Amino acid sequence: MSKNMNEPYKVYLSEEEIPRQYYNVRADMSTDVAPMLHPGKLQPVELGDLEPVFCTELAKQELNGTDRYIDIPGPVLDFYRMYRPSPLIRAYYLEKVLDTPAKIYYKYEGGNTSGSHKLNSAIAQAFYGKDQGLVGLTTETGAGQWGTAMSMACVYFGLELDVYMVKVSFEQKPYRKIIMQTYGANIVASPSNTTEIGKKMLADDPDSLGSLGTAISEAVERAVSSQGRRYVLGSVLNQVLLHQSVVGLEAKAALDKLDEYPDILIGCAGGGSNLGGLMAPYMADRLAGRQAPYFIAVEPTSCPSMTRGRFAYDFCDLGQVTPLAKMYTLGHAFMPSANHAGGLRYHGMSPILSQLYHDGFLDEARAVEQTSVFEAALTFARSEGTLPAPESAHAVRVAIDEALACKESSEEKTILFGLTGNGSLDLAAYGSYLDGTMSDYLPTDADLERSFASIPHLPGIQE
Amino acid sequence: MSKNMNEPYKVYLSEEEIPRQYYNVRADMSTDVAPMLHPGKLQPVELGDLEPVFCTELAKQELNGTDRYIDIPGPVLDFYRMYRPSPLIRAYYLEKVLDTPAKIYYKYEGGNTSGSHKLNSAIAQAFYGKDQGLVGLTTETGAGQWGTAMSMACVYFGLELDVYMVKVSFEQKPYRKIIMQTYGANIVASPSNTTEIGKKMLADDPDSLGSLGTAISEAVERAVSSQGRRYVLGSVLNQVLLHQSVVGLEAKAALDKLDEYPDILIGCAGGGSNLGGLMAPYMADRLAGRQAPYFIAVEPTSCPSMTRGRFAYDFCDLGQVTPLAKMYTLGHAFMPSANHAGGLRYHGMSPILSQLYHDGFLDEARAVEQTSVFEAALTFARSEGTLPAPESAHAVRVAIDEALACKESSEEKTILFGLTGNGSLDLAAYGSYLDGTMSDYLPTDADLERSFASIPHLPGIQE
Repeated sequence: MSKNMNEPYKVYLSEEEIPRQYYNVRADMSTDVAPMLHPGKLQPVELGDLEPVFCTELAKQELNGTDRYIDIPGPVLDFYRMYRPSPLIRAYYLEKVLDTPAKIYYKYEGGNTSGSHKLNSAIAQAFYGKDQGLVGLTTETGAGQWGTAMSMACVYFGLELDVYMVKVSFEQKPYRKIIMQTYGANIVASPSNTTEIGKKMLADDPDSLGSLGTAISEAVERAVSSQGRRYVLGSVLNQVLLHQSVVGLEAKAALDKLDEYPDILIGCAGGGSNLGGLMAPYMADRLAGRQAPYFIAVEPTSCPSMTRGRFAYDFCDLGQVTPLAKMYTLGHAFMPSANHAGGLRYHGMSPILSQLYHDGFLDEARAVEQTSVFEAALTFARSEGTLPAPESAHAVRVAIDEALACKESSEEKTILFGLTGNGSLDLAAYGSYLDGTMSDYLPTDADLERSFASIPHLPGIQE
Repeated sequence: MSKNMNEPYKVYLSEEEIPRQYYNVRADMSTDVAPMLHPGKLQPVELGDLEPVFCTELAKQELNGTDRYIDIPGPVLDFYRMYRPSPLIRAYYLEKVLDTPAKIYYKYEGGNTSGSHKLNSAIAQAFYGKDQGLVGLTTETGAGQWGTAMSMACVYFGLELDVYMVKVSFEQKPYRKIIMQTYGANIVASPSNTTEIGKKMLADDPDSLGSLGTAISEAVERAVSSQGRRYVLGSVLNQVLLHQSVVGLEAKAALDKLDEYPDILIGCAGGGSNLGGLMAPYMADRLAGRQAPYFIAVEPTSCPSMTRGRFAYDFCDLGQVTPLAKMYTLGHAFMPSANHAGGLRYHGMSPILSQLYHDGFLDEARAVEQTSVFEAALTFARSEGTLPAPESAHAVRVAIDEALACKESSEEKTILFGLTGNGSLDLAAYGSYLDGTMSDYLPTDADLERSFASIPHLPGIQE
């Protein structure tokens, strides 16, 4: 090896070092996120508006812009001990292949059976549901990571779970369906005849392959129309970023042990939960005016909500049943191209990340093309061993680009990125990259103008 | 929780505690394994017989019954640091569900991208091939774990790899094919027209779906008939058990830290590499007459090589191109039932394990039915989180049975088992269990008499 490899490759904190509290970055933001608006009244939502849909404690967290730290409940900590702390890894082998003077670290969240960081929030949400005495939870899933995580979380607490899975995924991803069923979930292909919305969709088009928007609408209807059930969501929301702060808190604790501080912090951003969690404690430094990393959010060119979107109030779902949030959005009618392989296909972005980006605290959003993302994924897999999830590979792409820039400039920068998941259940996408059938997609300005048109005009709020 | 959970759930050794030497249990056996016999000459094989097929250093290890410890090469240690030490885990959550006084520990080898313990030997074998100046290696794969591990190992050292994949698996397991291709391997559906044996098979039956026996024969032919290539195998061989001793050495080091010593040690056994590796340092205690665990090898009722097989010289492959080994065997013509979902379908068993079982040092072989194995896998997955590979779930079944026996007898025994892999790429088998289409299979005595007939009569050696 060209570098001194006497330092450890992986840093595992002890179980006693798992964070005891979530960090709520909103408490430190100079401008808090704009309040969500009730979709009917167009007034800021209050606890009572959210309680029919969300677990009460989660609704409180959603609205909490003031408490800096929130205790992690004991049963959630017990569950975290099964798969946390996750390792912080020095990418020695990738550095060697790139021949870069940069030091590259990554926080790997894909070692648990759900395969991603989603489990961190899933188990918290399931706990609050159980604690409230609920019978079950409902949710939707597209790629399947969130549905898998919720299935593991619900079976652990003995809660029922209905997962509305977009019908095209239900049919094309049998493994995702089976793994959720293995963990006891009830998987419903959406649109379905279990809801009024689904029945209407099927009446209009019996062969509908569904959409994430429809699946969300069905899951919400199922929650609000039956006793003892609530709806849960795996990204975008403030509560989810709160739970994901464990990722960043652990990463910082591990880097502190190595006496390292990142110059650059990189995360992929679909709904924003991964980057929001990883960067949280370092963003605290930025917000307090201390030394801080250069923060980069990475998104696909095919779904460029931060790089080309608008900062505006928009619906979180196609069906307009959810509250409106102020965020970077392509318009809730935006439909990602069918040739887009990975996740990160959400039309909007976490309101927290959006506000931080708007205010200049999150330094940069960068869009990358999917074939270059898979090229980076192969370089990573073949040097570091681990196969990245396509979403995570967006961060790998930019980490490699930044490390190569360091080589060019002979700078020994320290790079930290989030490897949010593994690609074991995404091999079809790797196959299409390897056999050359994968292509790139860049929406035209006209495409985006059409989807921007779905952003609501709100007299007196936004024009 | 009903138990004191203040002790850590997982024990990670530090990277400095990765074993520096493999432990060769043969050096301590009262009766060494019988020598392999050359398939033509029927004389004990010598180094020169093995060198055309195997890497020279590996051939030496295969024949080495005397050196107790063999240094692990530095580049192999570097690779081990990517995914080792693997965790030793206290199954608190499973114990709670079973309400057992037993303490259950498991050594989890499924956390790396290949998904199993196979990588431990794959990287060693690739290293010796690289060190010998080879261009590439050849192998076969059925279920795909070994082929995936070899792909990762070969791409790391810049070696070419030809994987002969049984055609039925090639067609039914596209994800396994893609993951091997992602790591740069050349995957050939067997029978193929790349070898004389394959061409002959295809001439006889153009629609042949292949068999592991044919794939082995093709891989060996490819190795011996081209320059700078050798053949590698993922189980059964003495060299493979040697490499897998890292599993047991780490497990013992971790349990020693906890001041724990297992009363019962359980491993699934197909070719024997997992159990052989896990039990190695504890078997050293047994062979030296010290306190030792009760050793249980678990196999499927559908492929009962130890529980119903014969201890005899037999060919290692259907094509009779490999040397003969003295082992428990069902006859090399044995074909496992098509409804057998998991791995562990090999007709024979590691000669080391076989000799130890024959001599009474390995205490028990136990056969379990696959539906009861998947029932145990679900119990495990839903309590401990991790989805077991079907092979590993055989050990889970017996660990649960032993823990329930402890509940019956109110004994606080300490159980250690090997969780050799994760089930992410085995979800089709879980699906067939969940939808009720999985069934059990018990070969009749008449079935076994037919396959026993393929065990060769060797005048003067065995009748």
